[in-house]
Amino acid sequence: MSIGPPTGMRDWLPQDALLRQRLMETIGKVYRLYGYLPIDTPAMEDLAVLLGKGGGENEKLLFKILKRGEKLAQADGELADYGLRFDLTVPLARFVASHQGKLPKVFRRYHIAPVWRADRPQKGRFREFYQCDIDVVGGAALDYEVEVITATERVLKELNLGKYWFRISDKRLLPLFLHGFEVPRAKIDPIAILFDKLDKIPPMQFDDELSVLLPKDSVAWNELHVLIHKASPYVHHEILLRSNTSYYKECFAKVKDALIRDQIEEVCANLDSILQSVRDINSNSRIIFHPLMVRGMDYYTGPVYEAVMDKGPKTSILGGGRYDDLIGMFAGKKIPAVGCSLGFERILAILQERESGTVVTVTNQVLLVNEGATAVLLQQQAEQLRNEGFCIETNLDTDDVGRQFKHAEEAGMRWAIRRFDAAASTITVRDLSKRQDFTMPLSEFKARLAGSYP
Amino acid sequence: MSIGPPTGMRDWLPQDALLRQRLMETIGKVYRLYGYLPIDTPAMEDLAVLLGKGGGENEKLLFKILKRGEKLAQADGELADYGLRFDLTVPLARFVASHQGKLPKVFRRYHIAPVWRADRPQKGRFREFYQCDIDVVGGAALDYEVEVITATERVLKELNLGKYWFRISDKRLLPLFLHGFEVPRAKIDPIAILFDKLDKIPPMQFDDELSVLLPKDSVAWNELHVLIHKASPYVHHEILLRSNTSYYKECFAKVKDALIRDQIEEVCANLDSILQSVRDINSNSRIIFHPLMVRGMDYYTGPVYEAVMDKGPKTSILGGGRYDDLIGMFAGKKIPAVGCSLGFERILAILQERESGTVVTVTNQVLLVNEGATAVLLQQQAEQLRNEGFCIETNLDTDDVGRQFKHAEEAGMRWAIRRFDAAASTITVRDLSKRQDFTMPLSEFKARLAGSYP
Repeated sequence: MSIGPPTGMRDWLPQDALLRQRLMETIGKVYRLYGYLPIDTPAMEDLAVLLGKGGGENEKLLFKILKRGEKLAQADGELADYGLRFDLTVPLARFVASHQGKLPKVFRRYHIAPVWRADRPQKGRFREFYQCDIDVVGGAALDYEVEVITATERVLKELNLGKYWFRISDKRLLPLFLHGFEVPRAKIDPIAILFDKLDKIPPMQFDDELSVLLPKDSVAWNELHVLIHKASPYVHHEILLRSNTSYYKECFAKVKDALIRDQIEEVCANLDSILQSVRDINSNSRIIFHPLMVRGMDYYTGPVYEAVMDKGPKTSILGGGRYDDLIGMFAGKKIPAVGCSLGFERILAILQERESGTVVTVTNQVLLVNEGATAVLLQQQAEQLRNEGFCIETNLDTDDVGRQFKHAEEAGMRWAIRRFDAAASTITVRDLSKRQDFTMPLSEFKARLAGSYP
Repeated sequence: MSIGPPTGMRDWLPQDALLRQRLMETIGKVYRLYGYLPIDTPAMEDLAVLLGKGGGENEKLLFKILKRGEKLAQADGELADYGLRFDLTVPLARFVASHQGKLPKVFRRYHIAPVWRADRPQKGRFREFYQCDIDVVGGAALDYEVEVITATERVLKELNLGKYWFRISDKRLLPLFLHGFEVPRAKIDPIAILFDKLDKIPPMQFDDELSVLLPKDSVAWNELHVLIHKASPYVHHEILLRSNTSYYKECFAKVKDALIRDQIEEVCANLDSILQSVRDINSNSRIIFHPLMVRGMDYYTGPVYEAVMDKGPKTSILGGGRYDDLIGMFAGKKIPAVGCSLGFERILAILQERESGTVVTVTNQVLLVNEGATAVLLQQQAEQLRNEGFCIETNLDTDDVGRQFKHAEEAGMRWAIRRFDAAASTITVRDLSKRQDFTMPLSEFKARLAGSYP
């Protein structure tokens, strides 16, 4: 029998579980500043709900729940009745339909929860993983895009992830542009999908793949390459931080069909309005217009955005946009919605990498050393320290002091309390990393620990 | 198509989701004070792991995961390969076996997570529900029982649940007692199971059911009734708060078989040691010895305990004990363990009842009223307030002020900010419950909100 977790799934040891918890708490705390509140839904949904959008790719990735008892015995054909959720968007649509009367007209929610996909496991891709979505349901104004972006940039700042680029475009823009240069309708989607890989594959390979879809040195080919050059990541981005869509004005102006040009202008006006507002509200915003950015999701209907780290792999750390046709699908009416999905696992991996090597700071547990006191006396002292807010672990076995220090170090602790004088409110602690003892007022020790978690 | 959650499962609207989150955070915070750290495991486990203990009852309640693709096509007989966990104990045993080398010799962990059981849904019983377990793995000394109980009583105090009784006994005690009065071996288990219902059914019904197992007015019958009388809930409990097992000394002394009497004495000596230590460490402990208390779980091997509320239904709000034969089952060796499982859903229901009617205090979101400012200006002000730590919701639509107040009230907010003077650091707020406006320094408003969540 295998004693590991199921394929593609993970056990969480305390250090990682704490880090994950801290990440969830930080994200929640920031979104609550903006009036977003948590919701939750069951891990499983009716199969009909999950396959409501036609199934397709998702059906293949579903973990289905076997029917039970009588229902299984009588089952012909479909053996399952439920499935585990594969995202948090379908459950949100179901939730909104189910609780329509109880939700505010503009419903801001966040949802941080695991989802399951029976995908082929690979590095960084799991069969059980967390998603973290915020959405405004019922808000049609562009101001909601602005709010979602502003809140999300505050999350990134609070997490202190490092330098990132927050790219925005509009789902309709690249197709309009291609259409404007007479690219056949059937090629537009494949080209858009290829652009999703722009950052991830070498330029030569990109051109090779593009040449299958588009004649080399056709007008469209050339104009796309002008755009590619102007948007070239990490060359012109600092300029883009201060630019809006007019940076690409000349490219768009080359579209001959006036109707298409008008449509492009309208889309650009919307984006400029978002760019301007986001920057007016947050002068440190790292938002840039990136006309070639394509979010893979079919269901977006307007502005879309993503963020990528300046350093490291170019997988996005978040993505989102407006999707006005999806949330109403179970409620039977059109409900505008705009949201953002943080790449929870990706962000966690970045934090894990950063913290590795400094494991000691992850816990603020302190060992109260047992140097021969009775268990009761030791626990009485421990209780006094806990009343002061210290996280105290005691050794209730008869290990010698050296062994106690060793265990504490292995568990990621930095400090061991050797003597606590409650009357004088002083403490003698050993810095396990320096193997040195210090005596200090309790308040000073408290201040030293204050920076650490939790 | 049904748009509700699956049978016996729940959607969590923001108020309840926040309350649940606060409960989890409070429990975690207290247990971390004692050196317990969080872990997590996947929602699903190999069927072989879940059925490892022989299956039985649990097998019937399992939500099984249908095999996929090729594996399903080739399946003969067993159609499922995984199952959703039905508790957190089997996953812990698997976790301990899987990570043996990486865990400290004495491993303190807590785990708060959902489990799934395809039980018949009924009031207060769900098919998806949270469990909250703490356990010390690898600790054989009675001091670990003391620690688990002390930590758990601190959780109850922190949650401010109200008056409760923390009952302790030993899994072996009632059987020994019955054995001592020559009750046939085959009757002992059924009688123990009946005693689990002592508090929950009327005395006459209890006697009727007991009379099927034990002749009325036999010695055993009479001695059990002496115990029942002495332990009679809510009559003698205040005395029991200051007593130990000697309170029942005369009853136990009537056992004739010296060997059994010795065994009873040994069990009682252990319990007295725990009672004494718990009270020495926490003078407000509400622990009492309750010889008739029986925890249903087969796997306990020594001391067992539970807590019940003084008022309201007599279902226990937590249960636990020592179980030295279970955790090692996948590791292939004996590993002592002692733990406690909080009745998370039961406790949440108590908190929900208490908070109903005072919903307003559940959120500390504040509306920043839109009285005609541009969206950007409004958001700039909101950002300044968020920088101060306020959770600010703004109205980005063109609702009139009255409607904004109404939405805010419906969403459980108490305050609406009408004017914020950043230079003077003053604020004009409307108390929505009193329909009155007040002007005050920002710091004063902050202090007023400080009591509320989050």
